Parts: sequence; C-alpha cells; structure tokens
Amino acid sequence: MAALTRITHKAHLPFPAATAAAGGRRPRAARIRMSLQENGPSLAVVGVTGAVGQEFLSVLSDRDFPYRSIKMLASKRSAGKRMTFEDRDYVVEELTADSFEGVDIALFSAGGSISKELGPIAVEKGTIVVDNSSAFRMVEGVPLVIPEVNPEAMEGVRLGTGKGALIANPNCSTIICLMAATPLHRRAKVVRMVVSTYQAASGAGAAAMEELELQTREVLEGKPPTCNIFKLQYAFNLFSHNAPVLSNGYNEEEMKLVKETRKIWNDTNVKVTATCIRVPVMRAHAESVNLQFENPLDEETAKDILKNAPGVVVIDDRAANHFPTPLEVSNKDDVAVGRIRRDVSQDGNYGLDIFVCGDQIRKGAALNAVQIAEMLL
Amino acid sequence: MAALTRITHKAHLPFPAATAAAGGRRPRAARIRMSLQENGPSLAVVGVTGAVGQEFLSVLSDRDFPYRSIKMLASKRSAGKRMTFEDRDYVVEELTADSFEGVDIALFSAGGSISKELGPIAVEKGTIVVDNSSAFRMVEGVPLVIPEVNPEAMEGVRLGTGKGALIANPNCSTIICLMAATPLHRRAKVVRMVVSTYQAASGAGAAAMEELELQTREVLEGKPPTCNIFKLQYAFNLFSHNAPVLSNGYNEEEMKLVKETRKIWNDTNVKVTATCIRVPVMRAHAESVNLQFENPLDEETAKDILKNAPGVVVIDDRAANHFPTPLEVSNKDDVAVGRIRRDVSQDGNYGLDIFVCGDQIRKGAALNAVQIAEMLL
Repeated sequence: MAALTRITHKAHLPFPAATAAAGGRRPRAARIRMSLQENGPSLAVVGVTGAVGQEFLSVLSDRDFPYRSIKMLASKRSAGKRMTFEDRDYVVEELTADSFEGVDIALFSAGGSISKELGPIAVEKGTIVVDNSSAFRMVEGVPLVIPEVNPEAMEGVRLGTGKGALIANPNCSTIICLMAATPLHRRAKVVRMVVSTYQAASGAGAAAMEELELQTREVLEGKPPTCNIFKLQYAFNLFSHNAPVLSNGYNEEEMKLVKETRKIWNDTNVKVTATCIRVPVMRAHAESVNLQFENPLDEETAKDILKNAPGVVVIDDRAANHFPTPLEVSNKDDVAVGRIRRDVSQDGNYGLDIFVCGDQIRKGAALNAVQIAEMLL
Repeated sequence: MAALTRITHKAHLPFPAATAAAGGRRPRAARIRMSLQENGPSLAVVGVTGAVGQEFLSVLSDRDFPYRSIKMLASKRSAGKRMTFEDRDYVVEELTADSFEGVDIALFSAGGSISKELGPIAVEKGTIVVDNSSAFRMVEGVPLVIPEVNPEAMEGVRLGTGKGALIANPNCSTIICLMAATPLHRRAKVVRMVVSTYQAASGAGAAAMEELELQTREVLEGKPPTCNIFKLQYAFNLFSHNAPVLSNGYNEEEMKLVKETRKIWNDTNVKVTATCIRVPVMRAHAESVNLQFENPLDEETAKDILKNAPGVVVIDDRAANHFPTPLEVSNKDDVAVGRIRRDVSQDGNYGLDIFVCGDQIRKGAALNAVQIAEMLL
C-alpha cells in the first residue's frame, strides 16, 4: 500500500485517493455496523490496492453494502499486504483462477487484460462480475449499465441462481456525461452531442495522480519534471488524452463516448463526437456538452428536469458566477450540472449547452459499480 | 516591476511573463540594432508594467519594429519606475490625457475603462491606437483585426496623415480560434462552430499567474489557498470563466467569440456557441473546436490547408500521440493545430473536429497588436 498511503487526505489537498480502507471519511463509531451479515453475498474486490479498488471499499462501507465475507485480491506484487476494512484485518490475496470459488459478486478494476483473462473464469464459477474495465463493454449480451439510466439492461441477472454473469461498468467520461444528458434525452430526444472533456489524473490511476503531484513540486522548484506515466509535462499543462489514436483520428477514450452512449441509450442513431483532453486536476472530470434535440426543450424546463434527476445536482448561479468545479464534486456521489443555457447557435429551443462535473473515481467508477451490485440484492 | 520580476523564466517553469524588457529571450549581442531609427514612428506602450505590456516590448524587440522614440506609460502607482529596453534606460511615465502629444502609434493594454477614457483623446491628438481591450471591438467603424485573417478591415488607416484612428485587437480566444478556423472557412465556409476553451491564467493578468503559482505551493503544503484574484481554488482545479454572466446564460468571454467571429469574418450568419473554462495553465490557451461546413472538406485537404496557413503550425502525429499543448506553444508566435479529423457525428465531409493551442499573451494579445502596427508602416 506504499504507493497509496503517500496520497493522504490533507486539508485542501485535492487528491484523497485512499481514504476509506483506513477508516473512511465519515466517522460512524456510534452506529452499529450492519454490513457484515450472514445472509449477505460473499464479495471479492479485484485490484483492491488501486485507486478504484480502494474506492470500492470506501463506497461499500459508506453505503452499508451487506456482505458475509470479502476477499481482497490483487497482483502477486501486492499479495501479503495487510489492510483494515470496517475494523477487521485482511491480508491481500494473490489473484488467480482459483480466487472465485464461492464468490457471489466480484468487483473488478485491475485493467482490461486481467478482466479478459479472469472475468470469464469467475463467471464459470457462478460469480456475477461487475467489471470496471473496457474489456466487455461493447460485447453483445453484456449489459452496460448506469443504474440511474438503463437499469432495465440488467434484467435477468440475479443472485442466488448459481449462474454467473458479466456486467460492464461504462467508461468514466460516459457515465458522467450521460448522468446529465439522459434526463434531457428522455424528454426531448438528443439527436447529436458534441463533447469536450477536461479529464483528471485519476483516470490513469493512482500513480498518475502521484506523478502530477510530484511534477508540480518539481516544476515549482525549477527541476525537470519526472515523466514516467505520461511522456510529457502534465503540471501546468494539458494534453490530448493518452489513449491510442485510431485510424479515424479519434482516440479510444473518445470512441468510448461515441459507442457506449449508443449502447446505453439503445439508440444506434444518436450522433456523438468527443474531444478528450487531460487537465492537471486530481480526481474529477469536467465535460462541456453541446446538445441538439429532436423536440424543443427550453432552458428552464431543462433545469427543472435536472434538479429532479436522481444522482444529479444543479449548480447554476449566474449572478454569483458559481458553477460546477472538479474540486467541488471530488469525493461526492452526485454529478453536478451547470451553465445550462439555450445554445445561441441553434434555432429555437432545439439546443442546449451544459457543463458537467463528476468524481471520476466515485461515480465515474467505484460508486457506479457498487450501485450495479446493489441492484442484485 | 516587483510583481513581474517575481515571475522569472526558470528552466521548465511554465510562466515567463516578463522576459523581454530585461534583455529579451533571444540574445542578439552580435547584431546591430536597427529598431531605433530617426524615420520610425514614435510609439507609446500603455499599461507597460502589465503582462501584455511587457510582451509588447518583447515582441517589438523580437521583430525589430522600427521606432524613433517609445514612451513607457502606466498608472500613477507604477510611474517613476525604471526599466531598460533595447539597452536604453526608461522611466515609466504616468498615463494622462497629455501623454499622446506627438505619439504616432499607441499600443493599449491597461483595461477597458482606461481605453474608453483615453483612447479617443489619443485619437484626437492624431495617434493611431491599437487597443487590446474589449472597449471598441464591437463599435461600428472600428476595425477588429487579425492580420492573417482580415487585413482589409484596416484599409484607409495610415500613418503620416496626421489623422488618428482606433483599431481593436480581438479577444485572445477569438484570435487563437480564428487563426485555425479561417483558412478552413475560406475553403468550405463554416456555418456553425462549437467551441470549448481551456484558458490560461495569463488572460486575467500577471497577478492571476502569480496567484496560481502561490496557490499551488500552498495546496501542496496543505495550506488554504490564497484567493485574491479568483474567488475559489484555482490550483488543481478549473472553473467556468470569471467574466460576468449575461441574461442569456453565456458569459462575456463566450459572447466575444460569438460576436467577434461574425465581425471579423464579416458574416452575420455564422453560428457560434462557446463554453469558456479556465484551467490551471500559465500562459497559453487551448480550444476544442467543432466545425460544420457548407461545402465538403476532407481531413487531408484540411490538414494541407492548415500546413500552408500563415501563423499556423500543424502538430498532428497520431502514431506518437503528439498534438498541440499549451506548454509547447508558450512564448511561440504560431498557433498550433492538431487532432484534425472528420467529425463522425456529421454526414460526409461536412464536419471537422480540431484542437488549437496558442500563446495567450503573444498571438492572443501582444503579437497580434504589433502585427497590426506593422501594417501601418
């Protein structure tokens, strides 16, 4: 856990990657813990030492997710490390093909190749795998789920049948965008969406967050920045997302937004373009989203719809110039939406511009996965 | 100059706001300086102690702009300060209504209210004012000029006639966007443009750059960030541009892009929407621009057009994932364009996505103004 304990939750420090396992951010000493229950499912967290793995634990604890046992799984390198979760001691176990015996639900966040290799093995053992990687998202028959958006995609997946299943967690940018766009889409049907992202370091893992912090210190001291995770200076800079660029000129991150939106909305006609940029922010993404509708939707109605949308909070104070920021949504469950306004470049009320911020590790990954798991209970 | 000298040009430090006055970044000791010429115009720099004012000097020097005299003008607070420019000593003079006697060209960057008050007075005295503020940009009859884009707007403004004139420098975001969009517009006619900006601290002046540096140090030390220029934490964060929000929900910065584009392109029909965001970067802006054309334009042709456009450099290496970054264009004259690709959300070749970066202080302000002045010679 050395890599993670370096990122501690100091006041004003914007990067609390690992807070939960060591006690959680919400002291609840006076409450009787109900999560450890004989009739709860047996859980496994795969990639438990990573930024998202740690956040899985944080969210499970915050939401009193019931479980009768929990396995802490990671690579050989991390195996043997000790950790405390909900006042119990655990030893991190090495992830192998035998790890899933008797596991009801496994939350995976250990990268696509681990998911590809061990996800299907877990399913064969009867485990329901909620996978945070991109490995199965676009595989036909694998539900790709945001619980507030398309819970119906999970119909038929149930605990206690002895039958395993794969459920994919969408990409963080897609989740954050669609949390805001879907309520509007339901009302007025989005026909085209132009997205520009402002993505945090956390999307590239805890090591990227550490590198951003390290580089910033180095640059302020006039030293050359250490570039291990990214090949260029990240501190006081920004760059096109590091995902590989495809033959159509889009990078993989951008095409996730294009394709996952179609699958989640079950709408092959919706037109999406995206430009994905990494900015020197720690753990929350921002997205500028331009929407084009089939039916008219005025900005006041849009604001009301968003105010009533589950998992969404509207921050839109024009007089005070107060709108969502990554820092304000960090460690928060809700996705924040603001700058809601009629698009002056489109006729009538057929277009809106909005600005969305969401915690990449939480709703963009761990929270969404745990919410999927909750639907199985 | 205390405020500016604190921002020095260290290796890797991304914020060389004030390099020129104290000798310039390009050592030219061996060259015979030609700029101080008896037959050159008399110049005045208004707001000479600010970030853009300092850059005016840097650019004048770099480009061997001829002048027979130069007045260093600033507010009362800065008057009396000594500075060296091109090996000569100057004393900063207090800016008053009498400052423009005998001045041929005045470069203004001291804020809109100073421009509104003293710009017309200078013009009455026969001075040609190149104004970097927003004061006169949308005034009918005042040319709003990007030399590479619409030099024809300046026709009729000449030195040596004894007649003063106002010429407005467009807003930095507009200049940087249109440097890339115009060559494509000329070929295929842009009908709609969706812009999301990633704007640097420098747009809010040297004090904002200092605050970003100070805040970053404070946050890394676990201290609360100093918020004098902006009301919230800027370090490791981003926020909707601090310009006032208008009744239509757009902020003034965004409406500049909308309105200035129409004036510069002399096209009242072009549809523009923009979302302007400040990111923790020092002195160069980035912009994600989605273009919709009247006539088809494929991405290879677009790339060729941009490669041949004056003041534009194409950085678009998909295999190496090398595209423009703010740091790479800092202190550079050219605007960099990359991520040039067919927009998959539009049919055929009627849409392109591009990503543009340009130095906000240089081409976004000082360089463009000096280029305007050069057209008068």
